Amino acid sequence: MAYHVAAIGHALVDVLASADDAFLLEHNIAKGVMTMIDEYRASTLYAAFAAPQEAAGGSAANTLAGLVSFGGKGYFIGKVKDDRLGTSFADSMAASGLTFATTRATSGPQTGCCLIAVTPEGERSMNTFLGAASTLHTADIDEKALGESQVLYIEGYMWDVPNAKAAIGKAIAASKRAGKKIALTLSDPFCVGRYREEFLGLLKNDLDLVFANEEEIKALFEVSDFDAALQALEGWKGIAALTRSEKGCVVKHGNELHLVDAYPVKKVIDTTGAGDQFAAGFLYGLTHGMNLADCGRLGCLGASECIAHYGARPEVNLRELAAKANLLRQ
Amino acid sequence: MAYHVAAIGHALVDVLASADDAFLLEHNIAKGVMTMIDEYRASTLYAAFAAPQEAAGGSAANTLAGLVSFGGKGYFIGKVKDDRLGTSFADSMAASGLTFATTRATSGPQTGCCLIAVTPEGERSMNTFLGAASTLHTADIDEKALGESQVLYIEGYMWDVPNAKAAIGKAIAASKRAGKKIALTLSDPFCVGRYREEFLGLLKNDLDLVFANEEEIKALFEVSDFDAALQALEGWKGIAALTRSEKGCVVKHGNELHLVDAYPVKKVIDTTGAGDQFAAGFLYGLTHGMNLADCGRLGCLGASECIAHYGARPEVNLRELAAKANLLRQ
Repeated sequence: MAYHVAAIGHALVDVLASADDAFLLEHNIAKGVMTMIDEYRASTLYAAFAAPQEAAGGSAANTLAGLVSFGGKGYFIGKVKDDRLGTSFADSMAASGLTFATTRATSGPQTGCCLIAVTPEGERSMNTFLGAASTLHTADIDEKALGESQVLYIEGYMWDVPNAKAAIGKAIAASKRAGKKIALTLSDPFCVGRYREEFLGLLKNDLDLVFANEEEIKALFEVSDFDAALQALEGWKGIAALTRSEKGCVVKHGNELHLVDAYPVKKVIDTTGAGDQFAAGFLYGLTHGMNLADCGRLGCLGASECIAHYGARPEVNLRELAAKANLLRQ
Repeated sequence: MAYHVAAIGHALVDVLASADDAFLLEHNIAKGVMTMIDEYRASTLYAAFAAPQEAAGGSAANTLAGLVSFGGKGYFIGKVKDDRLGTSFADSMAASGLTFATTRATSGPQTGCCLIAVTPEGERSMNTFLGAASTLHTADIDEKALGESQVLYIEGYMWDVPNAKAAIGKAIAASKRAGKKIALTLSDPFCVGRYREEFLGLLKNDLDLVFANEEEIKALFEVSDFDAALQALEGWKGIAALTRSEKGCVVKHGNELHLVDAYPVKKVIDTTGAGDQFAAGFLYGLTHGMNLADCGRLGCLGASECIAHYGARPEVNLRELAAKANLLRQ
């Protein structure tokens, strides 16, 4: 098996800069949330950022970075442009040990980015310009690579790009033909709200595995209570990996159900990326023959490392962390 | 149906008095735990208590008091002596609206009591003298009343009294003959440690319902992880109602599983009796045709009321509380 996980997601470069509240007010940045912005505004904000730091980001790409840190092999499908940020993204993915072979766009919008203003108390105000990421098309789907990947992992955010759906459809068909597993992360409760019917259709017809946090799974089934969401999954044959913040996670597979506690964290610094790193650990376990409870434990471990520092990618080697936690005993 | 629940438990009078640390040291009272004491020590401590307050206690009796507060009917089987504390216990049970018809002992040890020294910070140091409670025998089992009770609820602490086992065996046989449900609360992790094999035998052969907190169910299956305990219940046909403190409860019945969140509590004052009142709410729901998720919610509601004040019995009408929480909609 060439790859444990192939992921399709938005290829974004995170651009971080320190800022104060006055900066947020001056530049009309909504504090603490994620706002979609256009190219003009992206270039204006970028110019205003003082000493910006760049790092490859994007939800599914973050998950693959975590998978590699656990010791897995990942293949990323996402679109950048052949520009400076695009090179930055590709270099960062390569440095992580990931395969990123999607052809770069030579025309159209610039490489997508997430301009993040970090205020002194650690709050992150995100401004996302999808840019080239929104131009992913069917020709970018490498069916051979998908045939060599145990799991195809898709970011729910992709549904925000209408023309990406054909590409996703092609990828799902290719992976299914090759007998591989299809996984979706619901990404965000608002995203679920926008594409609820489509996600339910995927769940019914295509998915082997769904990742969701409590708000997302409640949004999917339009219920106000976690238990009601759990009951709504009755009869579904796939694996649901549901995260519940400090309550840990619930893993359901048919009649098999596991409750895994969260790992203790001394101080929660920044929860950005917790779901991405949960998925990383879970997918590592699943593609290495581990039982579902241990998959959940690896996921919780990845999330616990992530929330103890700024940023959505691991700062330590997750494989060593997992070994210390006695989770690689198999 | 004459009664919703018949319970067998230790008939104890709680005797509470304020005390300071010097008092605990002077009278060799271990702070914050429950210690079994003998009759001599009970009378010495009782004499030393300043302005003691008395109230009927005992785990299963507390549960029935909660059941009545929810609007149910309860029948209590437990042994007191025909002495002042025995009268106090019987009066208190009657005032709660419970039926307590066990013949009082005319000889033998005095009525059992739990002498509780409450230190200024709210810590409870308990000293239990079982007394007459330890003399329950088969003649005290009223098979007719059990035949009229939907559920027989047994306190695990009863196993500390060797001669109570025959009485319990008779009660179980009578309830089973009448087609009623048998429920056991595991009471305490140390209690589980002492009678593990017997409790496992009961689970296998007699129980329809088991109540346990996280530590107790882990002790029963000798595992260190809640999920492992949950998996150990696989294949068991009964209902497991498992409490997890601030994580709420897990209700498992075959392949049906519910996760119910705890109700928020402004300030936890005293967790004594939380398990008793959880059982009260759960049993009320179960004996009133509610679904298992709502049974769990009623249990969590009862526990949340209990831990917000001193003492193991409800201070408000739980039926009104449940109505406000929209749990009596059926």
